[in-house]
Amino acid sequence: MGPSHRLWATVEYDGADFFGFQIQSQERTVQGELERALEQVSGRATRVTGAGRTDRGVHAQGQVISFQAEWRHDLAELHRALNAVLADDVAVLKMGLATKDFHPRFSATCRAYCYTLLNRKWRSPVERRGVWHIAGTLDMARMIEASRCLIGTQDFAAFGRAPQGENTVRRVERTEWRKRDTYLTFDIEANAFLYRMVRSIVGTLVLVGLGQTSLKEFEAILQGRDRSRIRKIAPAQGLCLMRVDYARREGVCGEDFYG
Amino acid sequence: MGPSHRLWATVEYDGADFFGFQIQSQERTVQGELERALEQVSGRATRVTGAGRTDRGVHAQGQVISFQAEWRHDLAELHRALNAVLADDVAVLKMGLATKDFHPRFSATCRAYCYTLLNRKWRSPVERRGVWHIAGTLDMARMIEASRCLIGTQDFAAFGRAPQGENTVRRVERTEWRKRDTYLTFDIEANAFLYRMVRSIVGTLVLVGLGQTSLKEFEAILQGRDRSRIRKIAPAQGLCLMRVDYARREGVCGEDFYG
Repeated sequence: MGPSHRLWATVEYDGADFFGFQIQSQERTVQGELERALEQVSGRATRVTGAGRTDRGVHAQGQVISFQAEWRHDLAELHRALNAVLADDVAVLKMGLATKDFHPRFSATCRAYCYTLLNRKWRSPVERRGVWHIAGTLDMARMIEASRCLIGTQDFAAFGRAPQGENTVRRVERTEWRKRDTYLTFDIEANAFLYRMVRSIVGTLVLVGLGQTSLKEFEAILQGRDRSRIRKIAPAQGLCLMRVDYARREGVCGEDFYG
Repeated sequence: MGPSHRLWATVEYDGADFFGFQIQSQERTVQGELERALEQVSGRATRVTGAGRTDRGVHAQGQVISFQAEWRHDLAELHRALNAVLADDVAVLKMGLATKDFHPRFSATCRAYCYTLLNRKWRSPVERRGVWHIAGTLDMARMIEASRCLIGTQDFAAFGRAPQGENTVRRVERTEWRKRDTYLTFDIEANAFLYRMVRSIVGTLVLVGLGQTSLKEFEAILQGRDRSRIRKIAPAQGLCLMRVDYARREGVCGEDFYG
């Protein structure tokens, strides 16, 4: 056995064929696939910790994980070996040494998600795995205006459930709607998110855009803190975890730094 | 039975799960799926003709087809019914009445294809179905320069095979390389293409970009008219048939014109 390293990595995956990130005994999960690959290359059972438990069907381009690996060769070699044995719907994009106290979830200062809508008359076979198709006319100005009330430290109980033992207050730092051809993307960044929070927000914003929910109602839903008022949860395939941020002192930096 | 209409349609499909466009007795094809859907909604066996026989795995956002349909309701209703019964990897985007002499292949004046490369260190799970991943450094200036020799009316026998009874002379009207983040796209338009022509051109241009084939060699390959000199054929999943053009008098215009 080689020396033991505490490592972080950013991971990209196509969520379509996974039952979410978190390991389950019977189903294929991202965590399970990463642990299988690590065991295959290092010869030892390895536990992977992730920054966020993305739901079934949700994608990631910047999920962050950490793990302990025994490895005698250089770390670039471990990186290559992992990508060679991982299934084609998961890949490790960056990898580096982590400080001892680094935790992908608890050390995270910010998460960024992106949701993609396709707003045109007919569904798209080519894009169907990464968008939510909306055929009706969307009033983007109203969606942007509604998104503004999300900014700040607030109780988001209306839009999601907290992990056990946590409250439902979160700090939303930024929201942005962008339009490119027939695509609308919604970026949202917060210190942390509740379960289903982004999809409940996007579902409700789409109802605003379609004129089925007024701006006043949107504010009332947020302030009401009652999840039963959510009439639309956006489907998983449009959602992607883009990035997780850390304070630099936590031992994670933007680029590979093992070589 | 209602009146009989001669119709054209533009069709989008994800080529991954099809054995190409053209019908085959044993395998799932785009033509087969369209004919099945037309029979289901109209109650009659219907033959579909396409503008181009895309290979197994190749996508389309603008394939053009024609067919004869008996339909008593309005054509917008036929369009909706077709998209409702088509599998989720095919959709009809536009549809309209065609003139009697319209033929999607023989009336076509120009075809436009787009090939997408992902040029970064690691493969992308999220984009894997629509790109060719190239890890090495690509010299885009050299690829652009090599592409220039393709323009004009020339014998393209080096890059593909003609359908029986046709020669291998084609007229390439336009080529364009574009870069966006880590994506490189190659647009190419011609009056018509040989079998495998775009993929053979892209494969060879990538060898030029990687410095494995010189500009001089690229020209020599084109002028040599010998397919055995092609060392790399780009994989199908990066290729998409974007558009087929017709002279307006042929009875096809850009938008639905049935209502």
